[in-house]
Amino acid sequence: MKKFINAPDDFVRDSVAGLVMAHEGLLALNEAPLFVYRRTPKQGRVALVSGGGSGHEPLHSGYVGAGMLDAACPGEVFTAPTPDQIVAAAQRVEAGQGVLLIVKNYAGDGASFQMASDMLEVECATVLVNDDVAVEHSLHTTGRRGVAGTLIVEKMTGAAAEAGADLYECKTLGARVNAQTASMGVALTSCTVPEAQAPTFDIGGTEMEVGVGIHGEPGRYRRPLMPADDIVALLLEPVLQDLALKPGSTVLLHVNGFGGTPLMELHLVSGIATRQLRSAGIQVTRWLVGNHTTSLEMAGMSITLTKLDDELTRLWDASVTTPSLRW
Amino acid sequence: MKKFINAPDDFVRDSVAGLVMAHEGLLALNEAPLFVYRRTPKQGRVALVSGGGSGHEPLHSGYVGAGMLDAACPGEVFTAPTPDQIVAAAQRVEAGQGVLLIVKNYAGDGASFQMASDMLEVECATVLVNDDVAVEHSLHTTGRRGVAGTLIVEKMTGAAAEAGADLYECKTLGARVNAQTASMGVALTSCTVPEAQAPTFDIGGTEMEVGVGIHGEPGRYRRPLMPADDIVALLLEPVLQDLALKPGSTVLLHVNGFGGTPLMELHLVSGIATRQLRSAGIQVTRWLVGNHTTSLEMAGMSITLTKLDDELTRLWDASVTTPSLRW
Repeated sequence: MKKFINAPDDFVRDSVAGLVMAHEGLLALNEAPLFVYRRTPKQGRVALVSGGGSGHEPLHSGYVGAGMLDAACPGEVFTAPTPDQIVAAAQRVEAGQGVLLIVKNYAGDGASFQMASDMLEVECATVLVNDDVAVEHSLHTTGRRGVAGTLIVEKMTGAAAEAGADLYECKTLGARVNAQTASMGVALTSCTVPEAQAPTFDIGGTEMEVGVGIHGEPGRYRRPLMPADDIVALLLEPVLQDLALKPGSTVLLHVNGFGGTPLMELHLVSGIATRQLRSAGIQVTRWLVGNHTTSLEMAGMSITLTKLDDELTRLWDASVTTPSLRW
Repeated sequence: MKKFINAPDDFVRDSVAGLVMAHEGLLALNEAPLFVYRRTPKQGRVALVSGGGSGHEPLHSGYVGAGMLDAACPGEVFTAPTPDQIVAAAQRVEAGQGVLLIVKNYAGDGASFQMASDMLEVECATVLVNDDVAVEHSLHTTGRRGVAGTLIVEKMTGAAAEAGADLYECKTLGARVNAQTASMGVALTSCTVPEAQAPTFDIGGTEMEVGVGIHGEPGRYRRPLMPADDIVALLLEPVLQDLALKPGSTVLLHVNGFGGTPLMELHLVSGIATRQLRSAGIQVTRWLVGNHTTSLEMAGMSITLTKLDDELTRLWDASVTTPSLRW
């Protein structure tokens, strides 16, 4: 395991501190309990709070800022944040209109956010993200996993909150975006959790894990590496099926790298996916390509589609100013 | 070698096509000869053209857009673009005020851009970037290599061109930014060029290559991996010395990943570098952290400092709209 790190115990704290230093105009750090929040939150809007295990950066801390999250709570690597982090973050950013909690569907995250929600004395609601179509139940999950679609939920609900939507509207919108979003990923290598010091799983030099989770959880099956055209087709098929997309549908295409796959390959995948979707009569009108929801240094990627309509397109296009999403 | 790829021969073309598709409002593609250009260039400004071997994405194609490059010419992986690419790109984007060519200092790039410059019938000037302080001469270079500082030169001269600076002013500025910029990198793993199908160099499971080039060229020495604090100190020392930075100096800190190192580690490095620079009395006032000048999937990173003054700070802060740099 070769990483830029001092000690495993300090990894998350040091990394989050570096993020906030590099964006001092935008972000502020609360050291104990650990959370990152928008330095100058907009008053009178619903506050959006997310979080989860570290190791998926820039998710979630890199999406704190105008038009997206108000606070993010990083847990230890691949470990849910504690309820006290979530409660403290929510209380810090609540601005009179309640708090929307955006939670990836894993047992640990669900329990922590539920407990926080019970403890919070401000009005709050929860959106559960479960966009991964690979498997119905997984190592840490009852039901589908929440993966790269999470940032799409965060972006669109963030835009709605910034524009003045109330808590009920934000929650309803988040659930709708989640229902219209589906993802499927593939891993070429494992990642190594610093404290474990050994790869999370073994994989052969010519194999790929189809349907992998963002913590290295098993997917649907393992098979020999194929040309990119075939891998893209393999990932798109269950996503299209899940969303019941038909010729004429309009989608956002998000090609997400897992951390160890360079942008050059992700753009290649995005181009292939765009051509395949167009061949199927589906209009791709928005794209997001890059390492956004990572699994430490894992090589691999996922393809996410969100079925768009005018409202969701407008929310996606709305101005956003965060460290890792900005337009 | 596990990559998302169809065939090595199509790798660059397919990747560039994917990039342009995903940014269709901003970029246009010229297929033969291959170059990427700004879809709606600003008339009456100096046109900025760069390029180089592929494998360093987002450099250069990801920096085409308002306030930065007007065109980028991608060569094959780690291979200079041909003069006809550069000539065609320059002619396409020239807007009445001449063309500034921004060239990383490698023998192949230098020869191609020089030949293009001789063939061009429009007024042109060249800025050579050689920010890498690791070694004086290298495998493909007479003199120092051009690495991650290149995008800083591209950003600042792009801002000046957008604001109406003439060709002479842009060239003088580019040379000044280059002179005030220094970089040093370290690799933890090698990359694999698709056509070669084997790693560019061998490196042990607990070693690092200090002073590595962005094509995997040898650096200063190899030594056992150290804690991040010590690696940062090792890289900062020659950079500080090269720029003769003194207490009270103000700098831009750019922590650049080589493609296989996740953002979480880069932010950790950035935080450490910020603290070390502050301890030395140097003010860090601007940051850029991410995988910007990569070496395919190499794990590793470089630290770049640019000595700032009011003019350079203003040029850095100026609005920019490109696929991979946007504010």
